[in-house]
Amino acid sequence: MSAPSTGSPSGSDTRLAARPTIPGGDPFGTHRSVAPAGSLPQPAQRLDNDFSRLFAGELLLAVETLNIDAASFRQMEEGEGETDDQVIVGRVLGTIANRGKQHNPVTGSGGMLLGRVLQVEASHPDAATLRPGDRVASLVSLSLTPLRVDSVTAVRRPSAQMDVTGEAVLFASGAYARMPADMPERLALAVLDVAGAAPQVARLVKPNDRVLVLGGGGKSGILCAAEARRRGGPGAKVIAIESHAPYADDLRALGICDAVVTADARDPVAVRAATLAATGGVEVDVSFSCVNVPDAELAAILPVRDRGVAYFFAMSTSFTKAALGAEGVGKDVDLFVGNGYARGHADHTLAMMREMPAIRALFEKRYG
Amino acid sequence: MSAPSTGSPSGSDTRLAARPTIPGGDPFGTHRSVAPAGSLPQPAQRLDNDFSRLFAGELLLAVETLNIDAASFRQMEEGEGETDDQVIVGRVLGTIANRGKQHNPVTGSGGMLLGRVLQVEASHPDAATLRPGDRVASLVSLSLTPLRVDSVTAVRRPSAQMDVTGEAVLFASGAYARMPADMPERLALAVLDVAGAAPQVARLVKPNDRVLVLGGGGKSGILCAAEARRRGGPGAKVIAIESHAPYADDLRALGICDAVVTADARDPVAVRAATLAATGGVEVDVSFSCVNVPDAELAAILPVRDRGVAYFFAMSTSFTKAALGAEGVGKDVDLFVGNGYARGHADHTLAMMREMPAIRALFEKRYG
Repeated sequence: MSAPSTGSPSGSDTRLAARPTIPGGDPFGTHRSVAPAGSLPQPAQRLDNDFSRLFAGELLLAVETLNIDAASFRQMEEGEGETDDQVIVGRVLGTIANRGKQHNPVTGSGGMLLGRVLQVEASHPDAATLRPGDRVASLVSLSLTPLRVDSVTAVRRPSAQMDVTGEAVLFASGAYARMPADMPERLALAVLDVAGAAPQVARLVKPNDRVLVLGGGGKSGILCAAEARRRGGPGAKVIAIESHAPYADDLRALGICDAVVTADARDPVAVRAATLAATGGVEVDVSFSCVNVPDAELAAILPVRDRGVAYFFAMSTSFTKAALGAEGVGKDVDLFVGNGYARGHADHTLAMMREMPAIRALFEKRYG
Repeated sequence: MSAPSTGSPSGSDTRLAARPTIPGGDPFGTHRSVAPAGSLPQPAQRLDNDFSRLFAGELLLAVETLNIDAASFRQMEEGEGETDDQVIVGRVLGTIANRGKQHNPVTGSGGMLLGRVLQVEASHPDAATLRPGDRVASLVSLSLTPLRVDSVTAVRRPSAQMDVTGEAVLFASGAYARMPADMPERLALAVLDVAGAAPQVARLVKPNDRVLVLGGGGKSGILCAAEARRRGGPGAKVIAIESHAPYADDLRALGICDAVVTADARDPVAVRAATLAATGGVEVDVSFSCVNVPDAELAAILPVRDRGVAYFFAMSTSFTKAALGAEGVGKDVDLFVGNGYARGHADHTLAMMREMPAIRALFEKRYG
């Protein structure tokens, strides 16, 4: 599937259409922010997505697939009853027309993309090793990635992916991963989208910990539960909450959790009761929220012990609801905003696919 | 100023008007949530503020002063040009009429209150020691505190306080503090409002750390800077960013910072440059965001070293902007949602007023 890095017709086309570099360009991409001008590209209202010229340090990609953030995709599916694919396509194209990036104005989130290298500006840090045609996935959010989409050729709702033709730019500071040769690209893309999750679990979970995973049957939830089991060892208690019954069944079949409870993460009182029932009445050391619905903050806080940790990967998390919710119930716990970036996170998460064949098989079935 | 706990006319009135206890009532206050019914009171749209009867575990207070959260107060001041006090009063009363609590629908935040005990339901954990007339401040957010306001008698904008007559209920799990006898009540109320800040700084800052405080000249910012200096010791670097020139001057005069820079925390590139200039080019170990404006997330992230900490006390913080912003600039830092509650936080922060007379004098001038 990978385009060869030299000699292919598309590679030749690419080189014929080489874009000039114009002055300006910083590693963080402030030069592409149109409104407010000079701001960082993530908070910016609008980015410059004119790729007829490049700036210093930029990496130009031909985009093939957008992997939309789950909370964003769900939001776009809502509000109009039986939403068909064209409504979602229209929303994505409308956002890109307005903002120059796929930055959902409601959820604030983006996703990532799969593409191939078209051109590497000479001052990009990897200019010596990246070649036109190399297949890469972005590891920075679409919410800060200048993007132009010319057409949408497929929508895959179960995996929140869209196949497109278009172009995008990664800045010099923008993380990306080369697509691995030993697994299907759609699988790699699906897990790279949540590459930050398992490395953070590996840092926080200690042997014999009690761990709660909200939304444990989803993509990041399964990776969190698997990493919690690996780090916590056989003496750990790993408890998952999953509202979607088929996902709960999938997770049970993996055999990595001590309990998988079908409950709604928006009901913190029920989640706490279910968690305590599974632990024999003891609060958990750490919780991870991997849900894709709002109002699940307190379900991640209420079951945690004094001085424990509640870690929020869910992009639907409200800062004030988490902060004031913890205070309101008198819980002295450390509350973390999930950072999608951790050193080595792509390698860490791709390695899990090689080391955990049952999870790989499930993900290939779901997202492949 | 404190009402005597026995024998006063108001105390007698209180007892004459004792409210009956009706069945129901849990420690977290779910019994007062009207919409959604049975939810926790912080995320609830509306609370039951009918205090003609009490539920198990409740503490009924006569409210004297509301201390509005800074981000909420600022939001209510905005949008209508020269906002006079009556506009703010109208907004507060409108919110309470709609929600049964002072839970700002835009910022999601609340504040806290000062009052005196009217009645303690027999199953409240402190029923044996609390007496009618005792003066207390709530340490849980107004965003989850059932509240009725009958009149507003004063608005003090510099301290974001309002004197009112009204009633409120604290639940069995709701933290509160007895007002100290050795300092003015307005001062105590002002610092208790941000009681969670300094204890978190004390946990995170180590000797000789480099520390950045955004909004360092405000109330929580000064407490954070002072605690950072105390924990970091003379070898630490404490750098503050403050956009309001008089506040920056106040902070400089305290002599606790190595540098106080007058800059806008919404400009992360400028904040990073100013920080590196103050440290001699080295990124900081930990940053604390105490601003009251949106779009300051990246200013707290961009100057922090790999594996450092960015701690967000600011209620104006956006979860997605923090999460995706860090990922977007490739910063592997731990991002914390500021938890307003920490064990012993009220005692910790009141003790700072006794141990740091220059800060006490400044706060008495500003907020007393």
